[in-house]
Amino acid sequence: MKAEILATGDEIRTGALVDSNSGYVSEKLEENGIEVVRHTSVGDYLPILVSTLREIGDRADVAVVTGGLGPTTDDLSAEAAAKAAGVALVFNETALENVKSFFRKFNRPMTASNRKQALLPDGCKILYNPVGTAPGFALDIGQCRFYFLPGVPYEMKRMLAGHVIPDVLSFQGDTAMHSRVKTITTFGLPESLAGEKVAGVESAFSGIKLGLRANFPQIQVKLYGRDKDAVLLDQRLEAAGRWASERLGKHVVSENGETMEAVIGKLLLEKSATLALAESCTGGLLANWLTNVAGSSDYFLFSGVTYSNQAKMDVLAVKPETLEKHGAVHEETAREMAAGARRVADATFGLSTSGIAGPDGGTEDKPVGTVCIGFAGPGRSFGRRLYFPFGKRLMNKKIFAMAALDILRKELLTDA
Amino acid sequence: MKAEILATGDEIRTGALVDSNSGYVSEKLEENGIEVVRHTSVGDYLPILVSTLREIGDRADVAVVTGGLGPTTDDLSAEAAAKAAGVALVFNETALENVKSFFRKFNRPMTASNRKQALLPDGCKILYNPVGTAPGFALDIGQCRFYFLPGVPYEMKRMLAGHVIPDVLSFQGDTAMHSRVKTITTFGLPESLAGEKVAGVESAFSGIKLGLRANFPQIQVKLYGRDKDAVLLDQRLEAAGRWASERLGKHVVSENGETMEAVIGKLLLEKSATLALAESCTGGLLANWLTNVAGSSDYFLFSGVTYSNQAKMDVLAVKPETLEKHGAVHEETAREMAAGARRVADATFGLSTSGIAGPDGGTEDKPVGTVCIGFAGPGRSFGRRLYFPFGKRLMNKKIFAMAALDILRKELLTDA
Repeated sequence: MKAEILATGDEIRTGALVDSNSGYVSEKLEENGIEVVRHTSVGDYLPILVSTLREIGDRADVAVVTGGLGPTTDDLSAEAAAKAAGVALVFNETALENVKSFFRKFNRPMTASNRKQALLPDGCKILYNPVGTAPGFALDIGQCRFYFLPGVPYEMKRMLAGHVIPDVLSFQGDTAMHSRVKTITTFGLPESLAGEKVAGVESAFSGIKLGLRANFPQIQVKLYGRDKDAVLLDQRLEAAGRWASERLGKHVVSENGETMEAVIGKLLLEKSATLALAESCTGGLLANWLTNVAGSSDYFLFSGVTYSNQAKMDVLAVKPETLEKHGAVHEETAREMAAGARRVADATFGLSTSGIAGPDGGTEDKPVGTVCIGFAGPGRSFGRRLYFPFGKRLMNKKIFAMAALDILRKELLTDA
Repeated sequence: MKAEILATGDEIRTGALVDSNSGYVSEKLEENGIEVVRHTSVGDYLPILVSTLREIGDRADVAVVTGGLGPTTDDLSAEAAAKAAGVALVFNETALENVKSFFRKFNRPMTASNRKQALLPDGCKILYNPVGTAPGFALDIGQCRFYFLPGVPYEMKRMLAGHVIPDVLSFQGDTAMHSRVKTITTFGLPESLAGEKVAGVESAFSGIKLGLRANFPQIQVKLYGRDKDAVLLDQRLEAAGRWASERLGKHVVSENGETMEAVIGKLLLEKSATLALAESCTGGLLANWLTNVAGSSDYFLFSGVTYSNQAKMDVLAVKPETLEKHGAVHEETAREMAAGARRVADATFGLSTSGIAGPDGGTEDKPVGTVCIGFAGPGRSFGRRLYFPFGKRLMNKKIFAMAALDILRKELLTDA
């Protein structure tokens, strides 16, 4: 069964709004074993809407259309659907009741333009909208079953789950396919090298498809599988995941697609350990990532974002001699920063960054992209210097922060 | 001139990744007076790639394709383009030089699979990629000029601006229209209300189109204009911008589309003032935003990300009595945090946040979404309590941080 998705609206066509609906619909259809072949977006222009619906009607078995069901004159989905299917637009009493009940529920008067929302293609099936004024509808165009849903994401989501997915699954009967995806989070390998390491997975495991996704500075290795037998599929994907993880080695941050900061959180919780940070060049990014994880207050105590040398001395007790002798960007300074943060916050571990994110501040010795990372634990403390050649401030902040978390991650694993 | 956009990749087709590239490309093409008619997304499957390229080649004058230029086996754009155009894939020396120079710059060995990135359709024009390994290329398929760009957003953006837009504009010649967009950054109004306030701009200024873009928690009001006469267009857009800014009043953060953090930076520099932060619930996000601005070390000194109460007392000298009496989320605690950060870092201004980002930690008195913001300056200090009903941790962190910066911004403006 082949599915397509059509997102309508001038705001999407012109880029004023990023279309997140199509991705959502795809994900839900794929999760339910329905293969999505193509997404299309067009604007609020009747001839193009009609021709696009006809094209999809010739190609797909199932299509989900979002947008264009509202009360205004640029809402053209019902008219376009009727034209493409060669049926009349008729006034639908069930749909009008849907619109009216919404206004009753919210105790608001219905406007005249809302009546337009009940003018639908003859012979369509109404899809009740529990959370908005726009009723959806299902209609056959060509050889394809179309589902027309509102463009407002939470209305669309409710109706996709409530009407579309159950309806489509009921068609499939015995031929239903299951889809799964396994995501491995990695850090420290460029995309090309990660791809090379796991390239053989498709031939080693029949039916498994490989995809790589760069979410700088992490690379996600994705394994996609489809099968009629859900149990067999899970087993095969599990085995393929182990195979790939083995080849990616120490670069694997999570075998379940978790972020670095979530993995760090779990490792700290397992040890009942706490963490304090001292950030110079990462400017709060490290703390921000870690505190994006719900419940992080259980292990994250403090970050001293010490941009000035004075703050490094005053808050973190970095020695003036160290700063004088080595400067702010140095292994020893980083080590003292980590130790200082650990001591100030009475934390199990301290982690620090001091580097040159750019665009200015680089020297021959310490060019933009240089970072020193400090670690302090109960047993030992050290500083380490790294260099990244990206040359962009925001990328440098990200890779500095991720490199620091990766050093901490490896310490937490070794220490286990 | 009609343009289309094609986004390729299984991660987009399956919904694992939301395609933000197409919206970006649309926006830039439309800003430059090129009408975008349709977006399409398909997966990494050669027959469908080829047929989609041919279809677009029959319909459009210009097309931008993103993705599929990487080194791995699921990167099929060059092969699909060659097939659709009916030309051979050949080894391109210029492209190979592009790939090699990238690896030289980063001082890394080039892998064998990267050589594949120089295997391109015969007769194509190479588009140099200054920031990645994947060279882009331009090729005619059917009656349409295609531009193939990498899917990595920052690479794509650089190449769109550097190659595609200038190239397309040069085709237009005498019929060239000038397009301009004026962006007003606002904070504190929901999108619908911002839209209502400026809805009259299209009728008050002929030829000006209004667009709103939510970049949570900021709303950008965009005014688009197109005209053959660039001078007249600039004047009209300037006047429309003033008209809109007047109606948006104190919610205008920047009349030139600048971010809040850039505006804050400029205001501090103008006053030769410095800033220190104390962050609890925003967890480093405030510092991270501020330090994303190049040169921020001239005014940003320190942020104490004090998640634990102990750190609030030890680092910021918040009084134990205050914490005992009022708790961490309180106007007085926030005020003491701001004053403490200001004092510790010897800064002109101090700004703080303490609140409940969720999902846990809410009470009846202080539900999730409550934040107290503290301000301390040379003349005065205060704490203020706000509540936001979004209920999501990451949204709360963002709106808390932005609300704090907006309070600082207003203080800096009043103080002028």
